[in-house]
Amino acid sequence: MSKSPFLLDTKSVSYVIGEGALALSEKRLKKYRRIIILVDENTEKHCLPVFRKHLPDIDINQVVVIKSGEKQKNLDQSIYIWDKLTKQKVARDALFINLGGGVVTDIGGFVASTYKRGVSFINYPTTLLGMADAAIGGKTGIDFEGYKNQVGLFANPVSVVIDPIFLHTLEDIQWQSGFAEVMKYGLIMDRDLWYILAGKNYRDIDEWNNIITRAARDKIDIVQYDALEKGIRKNLNFGHTIGHAIESHYLNRDHPVTHGQAIAAGMICETWISSRIFEMDCTRTQEIVSMIDLNFSKFDLTEDMIPELIDLMRQDKKVREGKLKFSLIRKLGKATHDVEVDFDLIVDSLKYYINRHVTSE
Amino acid sequence: MSKSPFLLDTKSVSYVIGEGALALSEKRLKKYRRIIILVDENTEKHCLPVFRKHLPDIDINQVVVIKSGEKQKNLDQSIYIWDKLTKQKVARDALFINLGGGVVTDIGGFVASTYKRGVSFINYPTTLLGMADAAIGGKTGIDFEGYKNQVGLFANPVSVVIDPIFLHTLEDIQWQSGFAEVMKYGLIMDRDLWYILAGKNYRDIDEWNNIITRAARDKIDIVQYDALEKGIRKNLNFGHTIGHAIESHYLNRDHPVTHGQAIAAGMICETWISSRIFEMDCTRTQEIVSMIDLNFSKFDLTEDMIPELIDLMRQDKKVREGKLKFSLIRKLGKATHDVEVDFDLIVDSLKYYINRHVTSE
Repeated sequence: MSKSPFLLDTKSVSYVIGEGALALSEKRLKKYRRIIILVDENTEKHCLPVFRKHLPDIDINQVVVIKSGEKQKNLDQSIYIWDKLTKQKVARDALFINLGGGVVTDIGGFVASTYKRGVSFINYPTTLLGMADAAIGGKTGIDFEGYKNQVGLFANPVSVVIDPIFLHTLEDIQWQSGFAEVMKYGLIMDRDLWYILAGKNYRDIDEWNNIITRAARDKIDIVQYDALEKGIRKNLNFGHTIGHAIESHYLNRDHPVTHGQAIAAGMICETWISSRIFEMDCTRTQEIVSMIDLNFSKFDLTEDMIPELIDLMRQDKKVREGKLKFSLIRKLGKATHDVEVDFDLIVDSLKYYINRHVTSE
Repeated sequence: MSKSPFLLDTKSVSYVIGEGALALSEKRLKKYRRIIILVDENTEKHCLPVFRKHLPDIDINQVVVIKSGEKQKNLDQSIYIWDKLTKQKVARDALFINLGGGVVTDIGGFVASTYKRGVSFINYPTTLLGMADAAIGGKTGIDFEGYKNQVGLFANPVSVVIDPIFLHTLEDIQWQSGFAEVMKYGLIMDRDLWYILAGKNYRDIDEWNNIITRAARDKIDIVQYDALEKGIRKNLNFGHTIGHAIESHYLNRDHPVTHGQAIAAGMICETWISSRIFEMDCTRTQEIVSMIDLNFSKFDLTEDMIPELIDLMRQDKKVREGKLKFSLIRKLGKATHDVEVDFDLIVDSLKYYINRHVTSE
């Protein structure tokens, strides 16, 4: 695999991906007179020094620090940031940098694209999840009243700079969280990626530069074709319809789980649904479920939680004409979107998840 | 002038303008399974019955009522609407209708385009200001910490339906407010419109269908060329740099004035600045100022308020590289944007406004 960063200038977004991407982004940053950088408590401590070290000639005019965690992806923190920008009289020609994981790029993108009707922003994802997924594709937003990304908009950054150097700052749980999305690309569109990962626990993998470049390109390929999620982009929602409901369920109980943990459970249920609808080979189904089990512990969901989970799904953004449309896999590496699934089958998939016997993590 | 509504389907927005537009919009509304309508306390009372009467076959699934007035164009009201939509489990394929003046279309457009990353919306402006200006062009937003439209985004409605039938519901002060923007089109781009208005008080005008169609077309012409205000659209800001500062000044003192009153005062100052920079004929300058005086009372600004007004201007979205760029008129019906104006000259224009002797309204 090439060691040089992968560059892709699309009509609207410039992507710089791979080892060395950070330093390469200097030229673009120098175009701006004023730079504001958004971090959370963790990335302020662990990532901002790395950013400064590799970009010593870039003046940062203001650092805005928010609390870390999905619980913080809310309106109060948005107000906090809008207020900081307003008080500092930041003008519309400034640049806003999001340095962090999915929470920072989601909320930062939302605030930047609504402050004075939009200032330019650049995403520097620092987590595996951010690099492989959240920082790419222009989905911005915050959670509202217990619903994920209930308020937000599609707004592309001018650039996404993905440098695996930040991965060294991650804790184990963050590696795990991102790993769910990486596996997802294998399942929905990239068999070769799946075979790189298959049979491995994420802790035993070392070729991350290769994997991240591959996963990011997969996502870019999709969002290039379908920025607004009218068609093929919906394939990325595999595992997310049930996964988001599980994530919201725990978030509402003040017991947040990582996005990846929730999506991993969602992918088990939705693989099971896929196998029912598309008659997928049962060895294949087992292979997929085992691979997820190898990397994620099972949640202690119980059958009495199912009605609440179903109710949460009804609020999903993917509801059209009152019906829940799923993105499912037809076979390994091939997905289909807008598959209408009966609520009975969804309930059965949750029962399958709950009653399954798992021996190891 | 033709009595039939003027229809214009652009790539992204369908405009229906003129007497009868309301009934003509039925076909489009019928495409939606679920319709939510946003009104304020006034338009609920005076305009919603007119809407229902002319569109008897349209089912409105939910009416959301907000308080009226510019003071209400804030985040609290946005939260109130997001909450109503969330509680009612409104899906992304619903239609959101804004029935009201500039406050309703601004806040409604903002909330609709950020709820679940965007639901479609249609503007039905009910005020002269809304019809001639606010409902057209995709600027959405709310005021924040005393600054006008500090939070918002560019998001186009799928359609704008302008029917002068709603004008019958207006109070005198709302006619006056819209009249400032109508005069503005005359000054910046439409001499013929100016001559229709010249020498008249708005209370003595009756050919509103003609005037509104003309003003709306002027605005559409501009936003079609330059949706994101990179160039020619900035001409629409004539009167608004100083006008917005005056509007914010009174808003902050809990003594709100109408947008039109503030812009009228702004246009006097900026006409004076124009005359200094472009050596406009002094008879012409007097003619313009007199026409504004004929329609708007003078504010009781004093010289000690000037520093605060200047400070408010520094927060203007039109600030680029720390400098304030004005849109000015070179001669009647011709404007120029991005003219850098020294702060001294801005101060002098405010002094001119303050010390001017006005005999009549």
